[in-house]
Amino acid sequence: MIYADNAATTRMSDAAIQTMITLSGECYGNASSLYSIGQRAKEVLEQARADVAAVINAEPREITFTSGGSEADNQAIRSAAELGKLKGKKHIISSAFEHHAVLHTLSKLEREGFTVTLLPVHEDGLVRPEELAEAIREDTCLVTIMYANNEIGTIQPIRELGAICRERNVLFHTDAVQAIGHISVDVVRDNIDMLSASAHKFHGPKGTGFLYAKKGIRLTSLIEGGAQERGRRAGTENVPAIAATATALKEAAATLEEHAEATAKKRDRLIAGLSQIPHSALNGDAKKRLPSNVNFCFEGIEGESLLLLLDDRGIMASSGSACTSGSLDPSHVLLAIGRVHDVAHGSLRLSIGDDITDEEVDYLVKNVGEVVSYLRGFSPIWRDLTSGKKPFIL
Amino acid sequence: MIYADNAATTRMSDAAIQTMITLSGECYGNASSLYSIGQRAKEVLEQARADVAAVINAEPREITFTSGGSEADNQAIRSAAELGKLKGKKHIISSAFEHHAVLHTLSKLEREGFTVTLLPVHEDGLVRPEELAEAIREDTCLVTIMYANNEIGTIQPIRELGAICRERNVLFHTDAVQAIGHISVDVVRDNIDMLSASAHKFHGPKGTGFLYAKKGIRLTSLIEGGAQERGRRAGTENVPAIAATATALKEAAATLEEHAEATAKKRDRLIAGLSQIPHSALNGDAKKRLPSNVNFCFEGIEGESLLLLLDDRGIMASSGSACTSGSLDPSHVLLAIGRVHDVAHGSLRLSIGDDITDEEVDYLVKNVGEVVSYLRGFSPIWRDLTSGKKPFIL
Repeated sequence: MIYADNAATTRMSDAAIQTMITLSGECYGNASSLYSIGQRAKEVLEQARADVAAVINAEPREITFTSGGSEADNQAIRSAAELGKLKGKKHIISSAFEHHAVLHTLSKLEREGFTVTLLPVHEDGLVRPEELAEAIREDTCLVTIMYANNEIGTIQPIRELGAICRERNVLFHTDAVQAIGHISVDVVRDNIDMLSASAHKFHGPKGTGFLYAKKGIRLTSLIEGGAQERGRRAGTENVPAIAATATALKEAAATLEEHAEATAKKRDRLIAGLSQIPHSALNGDAKKRLPSNVNFCFEGIEGESLLLLLDDRGIMASSGSACTSGSLDPSHVLLAIGRVHDVAHGSLRLSIGDDITDEEVDYLVKNVGEVVSYLRGFSPIWRDLTSGKKPFIL
Repeated sequence: MIYADNAATTRMSDAAIQTMITLSGECYGNASSLYSIGQRAKEVLEQARADVAAVINAEPREITFTSGGSEADNQAIRSAAELGKLKGKKHIISSAFEHHAVLHTLSKLEREGFTVTLLPVHEDGLVRPEELAEAIREDTCLVTIMYANNEIGTIQPIRELGAICRERNVLFHTDAVQAIGHISVDVVRDNIDMLSASAHKFHGPKGTGFLYAKKGIRLTSLIEGGAQERGRRAGTENVPAIAATATALKEAAATLEEHAEATAKKRDRLIAGLSQIPHSALNGDAKKRLPSNVNFCFEGIEGESLLLLLDDRGIMASSGSACTSGSLDPSHVLLAIGRVHDVAHGSLRLSIGDDITDEEVDYLVKNVGEVVSYLRGFSPIWRDLTSGKKPFIL
């Protein structure tokens, strides 16, 4: 069995599970309570905040724990919009292939009178800094561009994008859900004002994430109530899961470079193998991508059948993001990088773990090849392509 | 050591911890994924939804899982407000002693043009159905009144309140965070349209809760993004915690009546004991209250010192709700039932577990008595009271 869908979610690390178990039993006090087990919970919470902050080179008070990456994205964008509105600035810049947590929040803001510019994403899966520079207006209150794409894994030139925003005095948010714990992220080096992260993408628990907001940026609370998280996020703090988040992130950070390098080698072996399949194409730049991400289009097939047959062979993968599974529309990410509908439908994302072996990579290559071949055997589109009725694209 | 702050949070049950551990390890797939471990997670999620629904006599599709009670309160009120706005109805009725997750959301709506009527809470800690009936207007879009109060534990006449709302065709929401798992709650019997619950108040995990919304009520999403929870709440579902929520709730429901009866006996023993302390008074009706809740005011003392000294004696309690700890203002709940500032400052909430023994109850009585006496020994207010400079109130 090969789990190759780590971009959808990861298995919690044993240490993170252990942290959560131990604290659920021993440290169940409410972190807002005055007595000893409450204060102990508070200490654990603040240590977790300090640990998480250290990994991204932030200060502890710049970290707000949330219920996950989507909430963090929503809160960051909402907060920047509120601040913008106060100054009469109601223009936001983003990119065409953001996660829906960003795009849907922006759509909502458009209905509230904001204007949104979506920068194009080029064939390589990257936005161009010069296009950002051109798009910034006098009334731009926010630029939000993801660190690494969740489907095709391409890593944006965040440092340059951040520098442009800083120069033009515009808030810069990045959805770093896919990046944190996998590649080096440094909010100072990268000129980031706000950043969203999700614990279950780096072997932490589900239901937890965090929002970094540079000090001085006033956050709007999405959830009103108690004064937890310094009034930025109401609700009893989920201390066991927050501590497990810190455990997982520290583990990931400690071995990040070594894992990234080793995983990138496996990724490249996988890309080389899959490239041998006729009429296939890698989506996004081959090198400027997450070490774990491989995303291909195979002409003439349908992604869902591919996934189901791979599952029969013990391979767990996805066609796009898990968040949009069940949708019949092709991936907005693949459309954004210029794939046509038919081709975008035949996509496969393999997001490998850092413990994958060469033998497992070869097993993936062999089985994907066989299944693609098999599916093409009774695909009407493939028949049209091979009979010359339709031209091959890939 | 006696943990008497179960209204702030409860220790997870062993079965709930076990569910969370097992699923975190075995069932880590993303519930939106097509392959087997994703589908297995989906099954677990839907079983949990069915289990939770059954306990409150709802249908599974009427349950939306959230990150907790505060989020559920926010979403319920926001949703009703949106629906009201569409019909030009912008009046909301609530009570003066709701949780801040409700009151602060209402304040925000007031700033957006809604009008809010807060029903008075009488000395017994109860709202009057006839006062609700009088307060409903043509433009009332929502009534939101908590099932049981989080500080003084009084149980509102929810069924009657619900019946009035239904008759007048107004949506009725109840924050049942303190009630669920402790007393019988039935959304059909009680005429409830929307209900909020939090898992960590009934021995489930922190960071999880649910919102019941009667079918046909369109919920507004607080968190935009993926199509999880049928588009009502974006973000990867926290399946291990959701399943642990169902485990804990089923456990609580199975023993509810027996536990409620036994705990009420201990509560009454505790109330009888503490009533012997001179110049003390129980807050809220003695019988129409949660089986676990005891809340007293002691004249001439300050609640925070009381808590710290009790902690030294191994007793964990609170003065008001954990969510407002650290605030120097007296409890808005105690003010709402007519306690004056000085008296409200000297409050103590003991929320006992259902496993408390008579010996432990007696230990609580003895120690609270001693500490109150000790504190009065050097209290300037007490000196004024005993010297006749100020009149006793209690």
